[in-house]
Amino acid sequence: MVQRLSRLLPKGFACARSSPALSGDFAGVALDGSERQYSWQHARAAAAALVTAGLGSLLVLRPQTSECEEAKLASAGQTQRKQPALPIYHAEDVANHNNKEQGVWVTYKDGVYDVTDFLEMHPGGASRLMLAAGGAIDPFWAMYQQHQNDEIRSLLEGYRIGSLAGGQDMSQQVADPYSHEPQRHPALIVRSQKPFNAETPAALLIGKLYTPNDLFYVRNHLPVPAVDLAAYALRIEGEGLRTIELSLKDLQTMFKRHTISATLQCAGNRRIDMSDLKDIKGTTWAAGAIGNAEWSGVTLKDVLEYAGLDESSETDAEHVQFEGLDSDMEGVCYGASILIEKAINKGADVLLAFEMNGRPLSKDHGYPVRVIAPGIVGARNVKWLSRIIISKEESQSHWQQHDYKSFSPNTDYDTVDWDSAPAIQEPNVTSAICSPNNHEAVTTSEGMIPVKGFAYRSSRMKSGGGHSIVRVDVSADGGKTWTVADLRSVPAKRSRAWSWSLWEAEVPAPAAQRDIEIICKATDNAYNTQPDSVAGVWNLRGVLNNAWHRVKVQVTDQ
Amino acid sequence: MVQRLSRLLPKGFACARSSPALSGDFAGVALDGSERQYSWQHARAAAAALVTAGLGSLLVLRPQTSECEEAKLASAGQTQRKQPALPIYHAEDVANHNNKEQGVWVTYKDGVYDVTDFLEMHPGGASRLMLAAGGAIDPFWAMYQQHQNDEIRSLLEGYRIGSLAGGQDMSQQVADPYSHEPQRHPALIVRSQKPFNAETPAALLIGKLYTPNDLFYVRNHLPVPAVDLAAYALRIEGEGLRTIELSLKDLQTMFKRHTISATLQCAGNRRIDMSDLKDIKGTTWAAGAIGNAEWSGVTLKDVLEYAGLDESSETDAEHVQFEGLDSDMEGVCYGASILIEKAINKGADVLLAFEMNGRPLSKDHGYPVRVIAPGIVGARNVKWLSRIIISKEESQSHWQQHDYKSFSPNTDYDTVDWDSAPAIQEPNVTSAICSPNNHEAVTTSEGMIPVKGFAYRSSRMKSGGGHSIVRVDVSADGGKTWTVADLRSVPAKRSRAWSWSLWEAEVPAPAAQRDIEIICKATDNAYNTQPDSVAGVWNLRGVLNNAWHRVKVQVTDQ
Repeated sequence: MVQRLSRLLPKGFACARSSPALSGDFAGVALDGSERQYSWQHARAAAAALVTAGLGSLLVLRPQTSECEEAKLASAGQTQRKQPALPIYHAEDVANHNNKEQGVWVTYKDGVYDVTDFLEMHPGGASRLMLAAGGAIDPFWAMYQQHQNDEIRSLLEGYRIGSLAGGQDMSQQVADPYSHEPQRHPALIVRSQKPFNAETPAALLIGKLYTPNDLFYVRNHLPVPAVDLAAYALRIEGEGLRTIELSLKDLQTMFKRHTISATLQCAGNRRIDMSDLKDIKGTTWAAGAIGNAEWSGVTLKDVLEYAGLDESSETDAEHVQFEGLDSDMEGVCYGASILIEKAINKGADVLLAFEMNGRPLSKDHGYPVRVIAPGIVGARNVKWLSRIIISKEESQSHWQQHDYKSFSPNTDYDTVDWDSAPAIQEPNVTSAICSPNNHEAVTTSEGMIPVKGFAYRSSRMKSGGGHSIVRVDVSADGGKTWTVADLRSVPAKRSRAWSWSLWEAEVPAPAAQRDIEIICKATDNAYNTQPDSVAGVWNLRGVLNNAWHRVKVQVTDQ
Repeated sequence: MVQRLSRLLPKGFACARSSPALSGDFAGVALDGSERQYSWQHARAAAAALVTAGLGSLLVLRPQTSECEEAKLASAGQTQRKQPALPIYHAEDVANHNNKEQGVWVTYKDGVYDVTDFLEMHPGGASRLMLAAGGAIDPFWAMYQQHQNDEIRSLLEGYRIGSLAGGQDMSQQVADPYSHEPQRHPALIVRSQKPFNAETPAALLIGKLYTPNDLFYVRNHLPVPAVDLAAYALRIEGEGLRTIELSLKDLQTMFKRHTISATLQCAGNRRIDMSDLKDIKGTTWAAGAIGNAEWSGVTLKDVLEYAGLDESSETDAEHVQFEGLDSDMEGVCYGASILIEKAINKGADVLLAFEMNGRPLSKDHGYPVRVIAPGIVGARNVKWLSRIIISKEESQSHWQQHDYKSFSPNTDYDTVDWDSAPAIQEPNVTSAICSPNNHEAVTTSEGMIPVKGFAYRSSRMKSGGGHSIVRVDVSADGGKTWTVADLRSVPAKRSRAWSWSLWEAEVPAPAAQRDIEIICKATDNAYNTQPDSVAGVWNLRGVLNNAWHRVKVQVTDQ
C-alpha cells in the first residue's frame, strides 16, 4: 500500500508546493523549445485534486522532509541519483510496461517512473505521452523543451518507482531528432541548442547593411529536417487552385527570378527587457534576433497564378498557409499563414526564396526553399517549405493560434484567451542600441558619446521619405534632450522599404556624470513611435517588446 | 528725420525684445489659419539688422519706455488707439501710396502704416504684401491668420505713420473671402472662425459609430468656396493620362458607385496635450477632430483608368496630387497628394466621394466632390476637389511640404529642415477617453468607474482580428494594472478596416483616493501602441500626438 501511495503522490509536486520560490514561477510555465503551450499548472492542480479526493488530505500524504529534500536534489540535477530504497529495474521490465493494462512506465536518465495515473493529466494529451510508453522520455523532452525545467523534473520525480540497472540508458533506443543539425558559426550567441536558437552579437549586427549568412540569427522551432533534393516537391493546393507539385528546379526555371532586400526579425527579439521586469519563460533574446539580407527566388503571386489563382475572381479564401518540412515526433509540422492580400498584391513582394545574399539557403535558413514575406514577422516566413494552401482559414498550427500573439500586461496564463488577439503579422516599430553595450565603459570625445544601432519597421508605403524609419532619437539625459541620429539604409526600390536602417549619433554626455543611461527610440513613416517603458507592453509571451531601448554605461573620463 | 527714424524702427519689435514673455514665445510663431509657415522671427531679426546697420545702435534708437508701453497697449487691443501725435490721413491718401516710388501704405483698422521698408522682409514675400498696397490689410490677415497675434500687431505698429480720419474703414473695400461660409451646428466647439475649425464635443463623439454630418469636425484651411454646380468640372491630367474633365453627373453616371466606412482625423487632433507641455501656435484641438462616416462615390482607380492610367505599365509617376477649389487671395489653392500605390491599389478604396452618411456632401465637407483616402490623415482628403494630377512629384503645396510633418522634440522653427521629414500620410495609433471629461466629478459603481472613448488607426490589413485596433487598455492607477476595454466597430469588409473602434470599460478606482487620473492606450494590429508620455513625441507643429490619453477626475463617493 505504501508503494501504491508513493506512486500516486507526486513527491516533487508536494515539494514544489512547499517551496514559494518554485510555486510562483510555475504559473508562467515554459514555452521554450517548440513553444507549444502546456498547462502544467493545471496538471499539477489536477494531480493535487486526485490525491486529495482519493487518498485523503495532502497534509497526511505529504512526504517527509528528508524525502522532499532528496526529491529536490534528484530533480534539480542533470543526472538522477540512485534512490536506494526503490527497486532496480532492467530495460526489459520497462519495455513490458507500455500499455494501460500493464501500467505505463517511462525512464528519464536512470530513473524509472510509472506515469499511468498521470496519462490523463498530461497537458499535451495522453496519446502524446504514450509515445514514450515502455521507453525513455529523454528524446521527447529534447523535442518539447518546455519539460526542461526543475518544476517538471520535480513533478516527474513524484512518479518514481525505481532505477534502471547500472549503466543502462534507454534514451539511445530512440533516434535523436536533432541528428541533422548543421555546424554553426561560433560567434553566434546560442540561446537554446535543441531546437537551435541563436542571435547575432550586437557589435556584429551593425557592421553591414546585409547581415552575413552565417552570422544571421537562427530561430528554429523543431529539429532541422534532412532534405533529399531529388525527392523535394513543393505542393500547392487549396481554394480555387489545381493541386500542383514543383521541384526546386521547376521553381528556378518556370518563373521569373526576383531579388529583394528584406529584414527578418523574431517576434521575441528584445524579450530580455521584458524578462527583467517580470519572469517570462521562453528564449531570452537580447536585441540580436534580427538581420537583413538580399533574398532571391520567385514571387508567391506568380506561383499561385500558375496554380490557377485568379486575382480578379471573388473568393472566400483569405489566407495562404505554409507548412515546413520540420516536424515533431508525431509528424506535426511547423506551420503559419499570411493574409492572401499580402500574398497576391503586386507590391507585396512575397518570395519563395532559394538564395540568401547570393548563396543557396543554408540548412538553418530553410534549404532548399523558404517563404520571405517582407514586412511580416519572422515566424510566418516558413523555412524548409513543403506545402502552400489557399484557405478560408488561418493556419491552425500552434504557432499561429496559441503563440506569437500579445496581450494586456495583466493577462497571464490563467486568464489568457488566445482567440482574443490576432496572430502577429506586421511587427511594430522598434530600435536598439548595439554600441556601446549595456554596462560598457566608454570614453567621451569632446563630451560626446558615439552611439550606434538599428531601427526597423518594414513598410510598403515609403511615404515620400524612401524608408520606413523616418527618424531615430537618442538621449543620454533621460529624454530631456534628444539627438537625431544619422540613418543608413538599403535604397528603397520604388515604394518598398523592407529593410532596416542602421544609425549612429554623437550624443552629449551630461557633464560630471559617470553613470549614464542611453536611450533610443525610432519613429516610422506613419509616425508611430516606441513606448517609453516596458511595463505598458509587457505580455505573457514576451513578444514585440518595442519600448525605448536603454543601455547603462559608465563614462570613464569624467 | 525723426519721422523717418520712427518709420524705420519697428517700435513693437524693440518692445518685444525687451519683454522676456514675448521673446520666448516668438520663435514658435503662429501657424494657425491657413497654416502657412512664415518666419516672422527672421523678419524681426532682419528688421533689427536693418536698423542696426543703417541707423546706429539699437540702444540709441530704442524708443522711450512711454512709447513702448503705448505701442504695447495699441498692439495688444482689438482696436487701434488714436495716436494724437501722428497725422490724420484720408482713405485717398492711403490709396495714393500703392507703389514703391510713392511708398507703400496700408491700413489696419484705423491705423495707417508705411510698410515700404518692410516689403523685402515680409516672410510671405513682397509681392504678397503688395496685394494690400494702398488699402486695408485686415482682409488679408483674416485669410492668413498667422498674423492674428500680439507680436505681429506689435511689429506692424512699429511702422505706424498716422491714423485714418474718423469713421473711415478701408477694410470694407475688399470683398470678405469668408462670405460663403455656411451655417454650422451650435454644438460644435469652434476653435477658429476664419478659417472655420471646429470639433465635436467628446460626449457626442462616442454616441454612434457614425458621426452625424452636422456634428462632424470641420477643418478648413481657407474660406469655403462658392461652387456653381453647372460650371463644376473635375480636371484629371498628368503622366500617362489624357486630360479629361468630368462633371458631378459624369462621375455619378459613368462609374460604379461604391460605399465605404472610414474615419477621418485631423493630424492636429489632441494637440492640446502638447500645447500644455510647451506652447504651440495652431488650432488647439482637444480630442474631437475625428469622426467616422459612410462615404459614397466612385473609386479614384476607376476614374484614373478611364483617363488612361495603366496599372501594368511601368511609369515614373509615384504621386496623385489633388487640388481644391478653396484658394487664398492670390488664387493659390489648397493642395495635397498621396502615393499612387495607395490610389490605384484595388484594396485601397480611395474614393471621389459625393455623399456622406447617405446625403450629398455639405459645404463644409467638400461639396460637390471630395477625396476620401481611407487610412490617410485628414489633410490629404482634399475637399471641393477640382483637379487630379498624376505626377513624379508630391504636391508642392505648403500643406504637403511645410506643414503636417513631425520632428524630434528638440527641433524648433530655427532648426527645422522641412525636407528631412516625410509628409504625414498614415496616422499613428491613437485613442482618447471621451467620458468622463477631464476634471469631471464621478461616482463609482461598486468601486468601478465607467470609462468610454474611441481608438483609431486605419489599416488595410485586418490581420485576422477583423479590426485595426486589437485592444484598448485602461488604467486608473497610473498603469500598475490595466483593464481591457470592450470594443465596438463597424464590421470590416473583407480585409479593410478603415473605421475607428468605440470602447468602454469598467475600471477599478483605487480605494480611498478621490483624485484619480484615468489613462487609456490602444494597440493596433501591428502591435504598435501609444507612447507613455507627450514629451517624447512633442513636435513644433503639434501633430499626431498619440501619447497615452489621460483625464483627471474626482471621485465624489470615496
